[in-house]
Amino acid sequence: MRMKRLMLATMVAVGLVGCTEEAPKTHAERPIAIAIHGGAGTITRENMSPEREVLFRQALTYATEAGYAVLEDGGSSVDAVQAAIQMMEESPLFNAGRGAVYTYEGRHELDASIMLGATGEAGAVAGVGNIRSPIAAARAVMEQSRHVMLSGSGAEEFARYVGLEQVSNTYFNTTERYEQLQQALERLRAREATGDQIAFEQSWEPAFNMGTVGAVALDSHGNLAAGTSTGGMTAKRWGRIGDAPVIGAGTWADNESCAVSATGHGEYFIRFHVAADICSRVKYQGKSIAEAGNEVIHNVLLPAGGTGGVIIVDNKGNISMPFNTEGMYRASKSNSTELSVGIYGPEQQ
Amino acid sequence: MRMKRLMLATMVAVGLVGCTEEAPKTHAERPIAIAIHGGAGTITRENMSPEREVLFRQALTYATEAGYAVLEDGGSSVDAVQAAIQMMEESPLFNAGRGAVYTYEGRHELDASIMLGATGEAGAVAGVGNIRSPIAAARAVMEQSRHVMLSGSGAEEFARYVGLEQVSNTYFNTTERYEQLQQALERLRAREATGDQIAFEQSWEPAFNMGTVGAVALDSHGNLAAGTSTGGMTAKRWGRIGDAPVIGAGTWADNESCAVSATGHGEYFIRFHVAADICSRVKYQGKSIAEAGNEVIHNVLLPAGGTGGVIIVDNKGNISMPFNTEGMYRASKSNSTELSVGIYGPEQQ
Repeated sequence: MRMKRLMLATMVAVGLVGCTEEAPKTHAERPIAIAIHGGAGTITRENMSPEREVLFRQALTYATEAGYAVLEDGGSSVDAVQAAIQMMEESPLFNAGRGAVYTYEGRHELDASIMLGATGEAGAVAGVGNIRSPIAAARAVMEQSRHVMLSGSGAEEFARYVGLEQVSNTYFNTTERYEQLQQALERLRAREATGDQIAFEQSWEPAFNMGTVGAVALDSHGNLAAGTSTGGMTAKRWGRIGDAPVIGAGTWADNESCAVSATGHGEYFIRFHVAADICSRVKYQGKSIAEAGNEVIHNVLLPAGGTGGVIIVDNKGNISMPFNTEGMYRASKSNSTELSVGIYGPEQQ
Repeated sequence: MRMKRLMLATMVAVGLVGCTEEAPKTHAERPIAIAIHGGAGTITRENMSPEREVLFRQALTYATEAGYAVLEDGGSSVDAVQAAIQMMEESPLFNAGRGAVYTYEGRHELDASIMLGATGEAGAVAGVGNIRSPIAAARAVMEQSRHVMLSGSGAEEFARYVGLEQVSNTYFNTTERYEQLQQALERLRAREATGDQIAFEQSWEPAFNMGTVGAVALDSHGNLAAGTSTGGMTAKRWGRIGDAPVIGAGTWADNESCAVSATGHGEYFIRFHVAADICSRVKYQGKSIAEAGNEVIHNVLLPAGGTGGVIIVDNKGNISMPFNTEGMYRASKSNSTELSVGIYGPEQQ
């Protein structure tokens, strides 16, 4: 397939075909692009061992290349997004799939969503604990149900019904996340002991709220797609749903403007419908994705107290990845830019 | 209180006070407005008995007046929205609270959300079966938790924790909705019998998807608020979440533009983030709420197959209530317009 396109491109270049009219652009000439994130937060060089940094850079590289290979092969943006996200779901490094954080009760409740820029079709699952790949479940909701958002045991029943791979909830266990839960519970219980229930409930901290994975892509057919998958917030309780499965908040794609996947303190991303608002500014105000993304992340979210970041790709293959935290695990590649992998903020690059 | 303001207004008018500077506007002079809906769908004169129409008009009138009284008394838009919605939740006429539709399994799973235009604070509950007033639960999430969206048994646990009134799930039973479920199940099972599972899953129909209640208001302090409450879709399954608890889809409020509550085929309202998109067109394109609302309801939703409507109030007290179905239960009142109650489309008024 790749060989065929290369031959065609060569033939066009040397004038063997398409002499009478302008040759139609081949897939390889049209812009293709992918960007991914693996969570934003207090990620600094001081807190990161060189060995661990290598692991993150490798994982981000593999996920980006997996998605890019789909695009280069003429595949769809939604396939590229799913391929990249599934690689991160399988890695214990990221808070999504294996590696998901623990709830207050010591379980795992995962969320994911996916959206097509061509049609606005979308799917999402919230609070699922027995589906190996939540992003695959979100896609099944989009393609095989009339619904957009399914939750809890009902969503798990749907996943069984359509034949997705099931796992035990303990499949998502990792020692690191378990230790994070213990630290979170210690802090929460110290406040619970004061007897002030409202203060206790309000003691969840942004620090418990790190990590999500996501991908956005533009394919050679001109179609955008976005997807997001997460384990949510450490020690989350009461069936809390964050922004990752909320279309417009954590995920948005519209061929007329851009595709966005978000990571950060989910409550703020819902309240400011961050993903869709960035694309609205592009669509209605004619802003670039860099302008629109910076405005929302730095001028809207940050003053309100919302921390996090987004990855954005527009319908020309431009990529922007603004964040207002110390760092954000991120990577991108397009047919006009080399693979780029980043972890820290600009001052630490 | 009302008498006092009237006296003050009279004194200002005849020049007894406020002679040296322009008198500050009293509450009564500033615009206040409320609009409510009780669901959209195939509501026609032919299908409605005169007795039933009287019941709906009364219920819509009472709910509007309950909300308006809060505003007239100088109260907040969020209190007005909650007062109006709670009256509709208590009525078995509407698909929200008592009168909620049944799920596939013969239970009730209710959703609600609420949002403040001043701060973008928001709260939502999804899939709750034991809370008497879902809109009160959404407000408790907004005010007494750090979260925005809680779901299922976790949300019910939170509601108990903050002391909201609990009821048995059978509290929501009504004969009419039970009969609607039986009709829906009959149609679904006829298709299930064909053995085509995907076709079966896709056989939910817009007709199962009628009804939601909502309110939007502008108070004398210049603050907008919006809220929505629903029992969802008849025969819904798999923990389906519709647009009502999705901030940006079913509910949106922003003092810089408008407040919106939606009703209709929820999946489309999520995919096109209808409530927030209307306000984005007002904010970023300078459109009126009538223009923005008509564009989204008639030019975006309808061509995609999405049926329903919205109620909108802007920060000047203008009201717009576009819908693309045969009818929408609706009512509004402001200090510049009389109470208006509507059920059918323009051609049947």
